[in-house]
Amino acid sequence: MMKTQRIYTFGDGSAEGRADMKNLLGGKGANLAEMNLIGVPVPPGFTITTEVCTDYNRLGAEAIMLAIKADVERGISHIETHTGKRFGDKNDPLLVSVRSGARVSMPGMMDTVLNLGINDEAVAALAKKSGNPRFAWDSYRRFIQMYGDVVLGMKPKNKTDIDPFEEIIEAMKKTKGVKQDNELTVEDLQALVPLFKAAVKEVTGKDFPVNPWDQLWGAICAVFDSWMNERAIYYRRMNQIPEEWGTAVNVQAMVFGNMGDTSATGVAFTRDAATGEDIFNGEYLINAQGEDVVAGIRTPQQITTEGSRRWAQLQGISEEERSAKYPSLEETMPECAKNLIETQQKLEDYFKDMQDLEFTIQEGKLWLLQTRNGKRTGEAMVKIAMDLMRENIIDEKSVLKRMEPQKLDELLHPVFDKSALKSAKVIAKGLPASPGAATGRIVFFADDAEIWAEDKQKVILVRIETSPEDLKGMDVAVGILTARGGMTSHAAVVARGMGKCCVSGAGEIKIDYKNKSIQMSGHTYQEGDWISLNGSTGEVYDGKVATVDPEISGDFKLLMEFCEKYTNMDVRTNADTPKDAAVARKFGAKGIGLCRTEHMFFSGERIKVMREMILSKTERGRRDALNRLLPMQRSDFSGIFEAMDGYGVTIRLLDPPLHEFVPHQLATQKELAEEMGLSLDEVKQACDSLEEFNPMLGHRGCRLGCTYPEITEMQARAIIEAALEARSKGHKVIPEIMVPLVGVIEELKLQANIIHETAEKVFKEKGERIDYKVGTMIEVPRAALTADKIAEVADFFSFGTNDLTQMTFGYSRDDAGKFLKIYHEKGILKNDPFAALDQDGVGSLVKIGVEKGRVTKPGLKVGICGEHGGEPSSVEFCNSVGMNYVSCSPFRVPIARVAAAQAALNR
Amino acid sequence: MMKTQRIYTFGDGSAEGRADMKNLLGGKGANLAEMNLIGVPVPPGFTITTEVCTDYNRLGAEAIMLAIKADVERGISHIETHTGKRFGDKNDPLLVSVRSGARVSMPGMMDTVLNLGINDEAVAALAKKSGNPRFAWDSYRRFIQMYGDVVLGMKPKNKTDIDPFEEIIEAMKKTKGVKQDNELTVEDLQALVPLFKAAVKEVTGKDFPVNPWDQLWGAICAVFDSWMNERAIYYRRMNQIPEEWGTAVNVQAMVFGNMGDTSATGVAFTRDAATGEDIFNGEYLINAQGEDVVAGIRTPQQITTEGSRRWAQLQGISEEERSAKYPSLEETMPECAKNLIETQQKLEDYFKDMQDLEFTIQEGKLWLLQTRNGKRTGEAMVKIAMDLMRENIIDEKSVLKRMEPQKLDELLHPVFDKSALKSAKVIAKGLPASPGAATGRIVFFADDAEIWAEDKQKVILVRIETSPEDLKGMDVAVGILTARGGMTSHAAVVARGMGKCCVSGAGEIKIDYKNKSIQMSGHTYQEGDWISLNGSTGEVYDGKVATVDPEISGDFKLLMEFCEKYTNMDVRTNADTPKDAAVARKFGAKGIGLCRTEHMFFSGERIKVMREMILSKTERGRRDALNRLLPMQRSDFSGIFEAMDGYGVTIRLLDPPLHEFVPHQLATQKELAEEMGLSLDEVKQACDSLEEFNPMLGHRGCRLGCTYPEITEMQARAIIEAALEARSKGHKVIPEIMVPLVGVIEELKLQANIIHETAEKVFKEKGERIDYKVGTMIEVPRAALTADKIAEVADFFSFGTNDLTQMTFGYSRDDAGKFLKIYHEKGILKNDPFAALDQDGVGSLVKIGVEKGRVTKPGLKVGICGEHGGEPSSVEFCNSVGMNYVSCSPFRVPIARVAAAQAALNR
Repeated sequence: MMKTQRIYTFGDGSAEGRADMKNLLGGKGANLAEMNLIGVPVPPGFTITTEVCTDYNRLGAEAIMLAIKADVERGISHIETHTGKRFGDKNDPLLVSVRSGARVSMPGMMDTVLNLGINDEAVAALAKKSGNPRFAWDSYRRFIQMYGDVVLGMKPKNKTDIDPFEEIIEAMKKTKGVKQDNELTVEDLQALVPLFKAAVKEVTGKDFPVNPWDQLWGAICAVFDSWMNERAIYYRRMNQIPEEWGTAVNVQAMVFGNMGDTSATGVAFTRDAATGEDIFNGEYLINAQGEDVVAGIRTPQQITTEGSRRWAQLQGISEEERSAKYPSLEETMPECAKNLIETQQKLEDYFKDMQDLEFTIQEGKLWLLQTRNGKRTGEAMVKIAMDLMRENIIDEKSVLKRMEPQKLDELLHPVFDKSALKSAKVIAKGLPASPGAATGRIVFFADDAEIWAEDKQKVILVRIETSPEDLKGMDVAVGILTARGGMTSHAAVVARGMGKCCVSGAGEIKIDYKNKSIQMSGHTYQEGDWISLNGSTGEVYDGKVATVDPEISGDFKLLMEFCEKYTNMDVRTNADTPKDAAVARKFGAKGIGLCRTEHMFFSGERIKVMREMILSKTERGRRDALNRLLPMQRSDFSGIFEAMDGYGVTIRLLDPPLHEFVPHQLATQKELAEEMGLSLDEVKQACDSLEEFNPMLGHRGCRLGCTYPEITEMQARAIIEAALEARSKGHKVIPEIMVPLVGVIEELKLQANIIHETAEKVFKEKGERIDYKVGTMIEVPRAALTADKIAEVADFFSFGTNDLTQMTFGYSRDDAGKFLKIYHEKGILKNDPFAALDQDGVGSLVKIGVEKGRVTKPGLKVGICGEHGGEPSSVEFCNSVGMNYVSCSPFRVPIARVAAAQAALNR
Repeated sequence: MMKTQRIYTFGDGSAEGRADMKNLLGGKGANLAEMNLIGVPVPPGFTITTEVCTDYNRLGAEAIMLAIKADVERGISHIETHTGKRFGDKNDPLLVSVRSGARVSMPGMMDTVLNLGINDEAVAALAKKSGNPRFAWDSYRRFIQMYGDVVLGMKPKNKTDIDPFEEIIEAMKKTKGVKQDNELTVEDLQALVPLFKAAVKEVTGKDFPVNPWDQLWGAICAVFDSWMNERAIYYRRMNQIPEEWGTAVNVQAMVFGNMGDTSATGVAFTRDAATGEDIFNGEYLINAQGEDVVAGIRTPQQITTEGSRRWAQLQGISEEERSAKYPSLEETMPECAKNLIETQQKLEDYFKDMQDLEFTIQEGKLWLLQTRNGKRTGEAMVKIAMDLMRENIIDEKSVLKRMEPQKLDELLHPVFDKSALKSAKVIAKGLPASPGAATGRIVFFADDAEIWAEDKQKVILVRIETSPEDLKGMDVAVGILTARGGMTSHAAVVARGMGKCCVSGAGEIKIDYKNKSIQMSGHTYQEGDWISLNGSTGEVYDGKVATVDPEISGDFKLLMEFCEKYTNMDVRTNADTPKDAAVARKFGAKGIGLCRTEHMFFSGERIKVMREMILSKTERGRRDALNRLLPMQRSDFSGIFEAMDGYGVTIRLLDPPLHEFVPHQLATQKELAEEMGLSLDEVKQACDSLEEFNPMLGHRGCRLGCTYPEITEMQARAIIEAALEARSKGHKVIPEIMVPLVGVIEELKLQANIIHETAEKVFKEKGERIDYKVGTMIEVPRAALTADKIAEVADFFSFGTNDLTQMTFGYSRDDAGKFLKIYHEKGILKNDPFAALDQDGVGSLVKIGVEKGRVTKPGLKVGICGEHGGEPSSVEFCNSVGMNYVSCSPFRVPIARVAAAQAALNR
């Protein structure tokens, strides 16, 4: 057997890896290799493969260190060759960075160690060699701090606790009477080192490692370990990234942005990640190292002068102040800036997509540390792809294939109502870090955000700056507001990735964590107060601001046209009202796949009549009540038929257990008793008798229609009468009546008979006929298993994958939360089967159902109307088993359309 | 297309049908035909096929009457030819009987009309022609009564109401001062007719039909209609007879047992239907018609003198009284008796099974009206088959094939403890109508029996005599006691069919329906009082009498040996205790297929410790409690291992939701709080937090073991330690650990890992090893669908078809009762899927599971441990999909063994 290659080196225009080796080298490693190959300056280094990470998790640190020892030594020796420096050398020591890099980018989730290889001897050599002792000591104290936090686990677990190193720095700054880190003198920095080391000894009980090789192995293991940290696990779950993928480790020669005023470090995007506009943009800091820019501790400066001016305007900074205090890279280092602009263009042209770059300038020389396809908002995703197409770089199909359908959700979120905005009071202004409109209640801590959100409250997370620990809180918030940090700060990047509205760097707000309050425009806001954020302008408003639904226009409209061109499957909608139907139609829905009739019974007078029906002891009593419900149902249906003129409308007969309709509170029971002329006891008893141990598996669905045929009769009559009525107004009406929860063919036969008999009666009464279909939900496993028989009676199948998932897994949606959380954490389940269709289990039933159904009726129309109908991977699956349509909620229609088109293209 | 033959004639030694045409002609019709062919005297007639019944149900009476008009006319003309009489003739009128006859016998369930064709003219002709006006008028009043009840629907719906015709007769008897019907004079009978007709007019509003053809069509339709009456539907459901089978209608020339003292009618069995002994036996009445014998109105006499003497002895009647009042047929009509004895032997020899005969003697000539394989008790079923084998009439395989496995249940019922019987007080004596021992509380009405039984009370139904209306009450009772009626009375025949203990004709008891009390041995017993019945001796005891488990011996033992010889599938048992294990082993169980561990946690101190475990908030707290549970579980298991020495023992890990273990009553919660040093609120909250909306689909099965691995650890340790312990005592121990409710392979992996790790720890501690297996239940649909993956880890599969049925149908066992009842009535479901495995739906999942599992592991051991494991049709299915074993409760093991052997023979 050939020996597996475990490390891949790169440097000086050559590389063992390539861009298309992302699975093995991670995104960062693969692109570092590729940049070398296309002549972009990259510090030499090597990548330890993701396979090693997988082995590491399986076999443990010791075994793996032994296994890759020779490889890592070869890698270091490769870097030494290309830099002329030596690792651990007393005169010209090689320092390296150790960075994670998974197959897909997981920003901030895993660990990084910079300046590795430094110790008391090396720092002296570095100071001497560079002639820049400040740089040397700054690097040393940074290293101890980072290594201590990351590798030695000194970062406080409790996020309200203070980092022990920060505590020492703060004390030092206080003693010295300075405010900024960079105001500390060389001697101050020098003095920090023994204090830091003492802290390490105190917390860990061990001396800080001075041997560079020990440092290196510690860092490599820490990166591997970070693949399994809580943040990373959460992120993977959120983004459906399999645990097996693992992370690569990139070890690379350090280049220093902190060697003085001709050094700098920065990040940049080749296009605008928020709007998609073709504007190169980015931020940098002079005399700094990478993490300073992202962390938002110092205010970063813009790379282009144009960008800098725009930024100053948003911040309310005059041109004089800007050019003095925050000049652009084009102004401070014009050569480097020119170089960078050329390089970014080269990279975008080469990778044919918007790039997110990291660079460092060391004493006037530009080095690229990373390039990757940049994260972007949904809006930017569409615009960039369309622009690239118009620039003839990619074609229509590529545009479609590049879409992440879920991200379109952002374009479908409400935006602020323009007229409401006029009277809205602006209380603060920041950077438009991630577009959208958000209205919510202020919370200051991620934990609080989670608690409020569990209580179904909309919250806006307000932080001085965010860190990876805030991830869960950001996830549950409707918007994020930070006081510090630029367009590339943690908050901005993560929010854009989530498609969540974010205003960052709103400098004038004053946050008081202790009292959970915030000062804005002279007013103090407390936790729980309402504010609104406009992520597209950076404005913060007092209170709630009304929103309106978005329009489909421009590139989005064009995208929908591409979908129409390439799809082979219709998208319908789940809608219970004419309004929902109209919205969905606007988004391109071709019919209704699921119109639930039970919601119609809840409002106003109806629920009373419904209750009378349920509590009647005789068929006659039920019929009386049903007769009063009939005209209400009929008018519901005719509105929907009109809204869906020309398309099929699938109406499902009554589904939930009757228990859901009766009152459970004494007062309401009393009222009902009086109205019905019954004793309270009788009403109570009747309500109690409807209670079930497992209502999910109880008396519901067509079991109601089979035991109380008069309900089916009324609904069938309402549908047919409404259809005739809508047609008489000139609409084209295609009614499809759907029987829920069928498990036994005789159920469907019985229901279909009632429907046909009722329809014939109506036709006779009205003297006219209309075509209609009678089909069934396939949502009980037995229905899928006996689909050949069921297809003998059914005109169409609609897979109800919500219930099918419940029954196939044996999970109650209402109860499974308790163990599903643990199941995700333990990796027992990779995805939530209620969100993404479980293709192995539930999917195989769906497949059996479709196949058996079409054995009996080759042309059988088959669709899906569970919530999976709007989830892209599930839509692809539905396409693969040959469904005619998927149906989803109105706002997911465009997402499903893109997913359907992609499925057709990928087939 | 060939015209379907709708009627089949027979008579005078020729017939269009044959015995093997039961599906088309019904059992009665087919055998009437066959009897003709083998020279047994049968009145001529014809059979309308069961297919016509099916068409009748589909198309309605009018269409069918038109369709078969010519056929029926042909049939009547056939009878006229053979009898020389003419239907509706004024001088020599032909009278006919109209009887139902389904594919299998459904005694008393459907309707019969005798003496049809009579009217005012015909009765005169009949009187004149026969010279027996009493016979003519008796037949006429019988006809009007029967036709009124059956065809015109005058039988009261409410069984406590009195039949209008009986009311008239009673009034007449009162006026005339007589007690018995046969004491009425010819004039009295003649006077009844206009009174009867007036009653008909009053109730139905129409004149009684005088045209014989109208009478005939009415009767034919009534028989078809009776296929769908409530009794018949209930009987079919109980006996799993499909509705589609339909009933045939037999129209036959009347022969009269009521033509005076040389006429008689009776029923007989070629062997003893209760014990199986080879003794011809039966009862008859002189000058009577068929229904008189079965209805038990007059005390019937025995056919053989030997039988008559035995009967008298049981009834405490002297030989003088017997020969004077109740002489045998051998004594009263020796020629006819001889003829009958020869005929019964001929029929048994021909049909190679015990026959149940109906005969009528008309003026000294014997006619057979029916022969069929006689219903019998389980004991008789075994003995008769074994005797026939010993008589070289059938072979071993036929013995096995003839068994109705369910009936063996009767042989496994407890019998009275001999020592308890010594001190038991006999309070009444009747006929040993159906063997068995029953102890229960007295009820007098079938409705009351149902109410008491729903309340989980054991009841004994006490009636003067039973009628088909009492069927449901008999079904729910543990025993039946009647004051009137012989060995062939309704009560006796039905009870034997049900395998239910019955004492009939206990003449000295006095029943007072009004006061719901009964006089026995001078004591008054009230409803609810306890009595005991010995159906094998006819004795009735005061109060409860202790019972013991039956032994397997004699013919039953031999039967089990045949099973062993022909089976290809093991039968295991579901047992949780050493005692159950020992019982099952005695019945031939080869191992335990399901040992539930949760029951072990409920008794005494254990439940407290279990509760502490559940309410602990920390793993440590749980471990503490589990450590205390460990020795208890270990001792449970070692007892079971010892009892199953040499066979596999499959132990299932904890399965039910924890909620089932915690206290729900305030007092117990208080107690627990004190014991655990918690506040009541804490305990309440903890208990409440375990509540689930759908516990069936909630946090249970391996979901517990996955979230609380320490539970699995404890149970695995208890099993392995117990296995080592039992082995050290010299037992051969084969532990099989079974993980419940697996739906995702990772669940099983996780659980298997814990088990293996724990086992290795124990092995290390004890310094010895033992082989064990880790397998899984397949009870979640997803497990069956992904069985190929699950088999990678599982050493064996055991199908848990209870849960699999719940999830495949989406039925909660606890709730489905509400609609399943209606589903059965409406024919939506043919069988209860929880009783007999649903082969189309659940079965297809089982098949998928077995096949996929064996793709991965060709030799995979597969069994079933749901309640279906002891149900014969399900056992056959399990055999057909290639299972290695079925597992069932101890008392069903012999039943499953017979079913398994039959399955092997039928394959």
